[in-house]
Amino acid sequence: MSRVIVPATSANLGPGFDSLGISLSIYNEYEFSLKDENGLFFEGVEEEFQNEDNIIYMAIKKVFDKYNFKFKGLGIKIIRQDIPISRGLGSSSSCIVAGLIGAFALMGKEINKDEILSLAVDIEGHPDNVCPAIFGGLVSTVMTESNKPLYNCIEIKEGIKFIALVPRVKLLTEKARAILPKEIPFKDCVYNIGRAALLISAFSNGKYSLLREATKDRIHEQYRSRLIENFDEIYNKVIELGAFACFLSGAGPTLMSIVDKNDLSFVNEISKFIKENNFNWDIKELMIDKNGAKILKGE
Amino acid sequence: MSRVIVPATSANLGPGFDSLGISLSIYNEYEFSLKDENGLFFEGVEEEFQNEDNIIYMAIKKVFDKYNFKFKGLGIKIIRQDIPISRGLGSSSSCIVAGLIGAFALMGKEINKDEILSLAVDIEGHPDNVCPAIFGGLVSTVMTESNKPLYNCIEIKEGIKFIALVPRVKLLTEKARAILPKEIPFKDCVYNIGRAALLISAFSNGKYSLLREATKDRIHEQYRSRLIENFDEIYNKVIELGAFACFLSGAGPTLMSIVDKNDLSFVNEISKFIKENNFNWDIKELMIDKNGAKILKGE
Repeated sequence: MSRVIVPATSANLGPGFDSLGISLSIYNEYEFSLKDENGLFFEGVEEEFQNEDNIIYMAIKKVFDKYNFKFKGLGIKIIRQDIPISRGLGSSSSCIVAGLIGAFALMGKEINKDEILSLAVDIEGHPDNVCPAIFGGLVSTVMTESNKPLYNCIEIKEGIKFIALVPRVKLLTEKARAILPKEIPFKDCVYNIGRAALLISAFSNGKYSLLREATKDRIHEQYRSRLIENFDEIYNKVIELGAFACFLSGAGPTLMSIVDKNDLSFVNEISKFIKENNFNWDIKELMIDKNGAKILKGE
Repeated sequence: MSRVIVPATSANLGPGFDSLGISLSIYNEYEFSLKDENGLFFEGVEEEFQNEDNIIYMAIKKVFDKYNFKFKGLGIKIIRQDIPISRGLGSSSSCIVAGLIGAFALMGKEINKDEILSLAVDIEGHPDNVCPAIFGGLVSTVMTESNKPLYNCIEIKEGIKFIALVPRVKLLTEKARAILPKEIPFKDCVYNIGRAALLISAFSNGKYSLLREATKDRIHEQYRSRLIENFDEIYNKVIELGAFACFLSGAGPTLMSIVDKNDLSFVNEISKFIKENNFNWDIKELMIDKNGAKILKGE
């Protein structure tokens, strides 16, 4: 039996489409077990996902196949599901990473996080969610021309916290991808390039006053925000309340805001605003998770 | 009389078009003086530039006009011109920055580097050369929507040096700009975004093995390199010799390479290669300049 805990992630960070992600302190917890009886045994998994297309199972299977590991039956249990599904907070990356790590644990094999990353990218296609889910913290990633992920974990200066504003509706990544343009005006491309670099620099040396400008994007947010009810009202309120930054998390619909760690009024004020307007949005106050996915020992 | 020294700069660093620049240890030195006699008095300046369109004079004039400073005559002397002209090493930025700083010194006014930057961007149009020329080191820059430059200076871990490979031909920035595309495929835009972020992260934490991938570009180098004779031969040789990275400096034609600080053979080998092939290229071994432009005191 193996237990794995994986943090939420916010990818496409600001201008960092498919490149920048950060892991945050909401967690899913999974338990995997080998069974003597043939078949898949799901627990805590929505009925529609209780089949061989289940992404957790696909991840486990990928590892078992790679190492030619034979099994009869498999138990997949979600013990805790705090990462909301299809909200741009990395719930599917969490499943992939948990399945991969769980499979190595079930085989009694040492976990090599670089191997986990490479397998995860094979499934997910891009590394900006799975990378922080695996390694923790802020991660800068690219795919090489030979489709190999490269990454660098970045130390972030203390002083900020993340407030996720989460609509109570799902937004499927496929739908959010389909709406993107095929070509970008040269100057908008330069706009994002400069901001992606500035964002890493600001996180590295704690110049948080730069985050407002450094998190701006011109290649996806303007298209995807149209799919999200009340995006503008909430975005504008967040800025009015003095947040360092506010941007779409992943492919949306979650809006991520960054505020001063010692700001005690922001959450109250934005909660009040959401309540008064009867918006169907939840609020999650988060810190950066520095560890990434891990096996829970001794259980 | 005022004397100003300004470092060379390499802008458009790797994927960081109009966004990333670094200042390097080649310097131009200028001397400015007010004259009792009307007119402009040039010394050490090529004859074709001895007129009111001279970019150094334009920079000085901008400051004098802003502060309504009246003068009769003005002496502009280039004492040292080590930054090669129109080679992608920031020679015109050096003139602009020197003129601006020199003007403040002639007026007896304190130098405010942020004000210098703002004036320099007014003249140059983009901040990625003038910023490192003013502040030194590696600088990440963007222009806000209201045309204000924002920047962040980035500490670079020790361990690298820069080798500039400089063709003995000029490449005018206007020509190099005209060749750029108006639109960029979405995936090439993401390619540069991810690498710009990775580049800053690699400079920040010294993961120099990432530089090769992190300096790759898809929005300008492939177009501009065609304008440069022997680009491919020299680029390939630099990579073969094990440099961390090799990319176009500014709008070209200089090729900038980054190698291990302790690499003693690279310069010899690339020199030999250039000599054997009778290429008309010069080699300059450079360190990062950490100070930026300064007034030489007591002279």
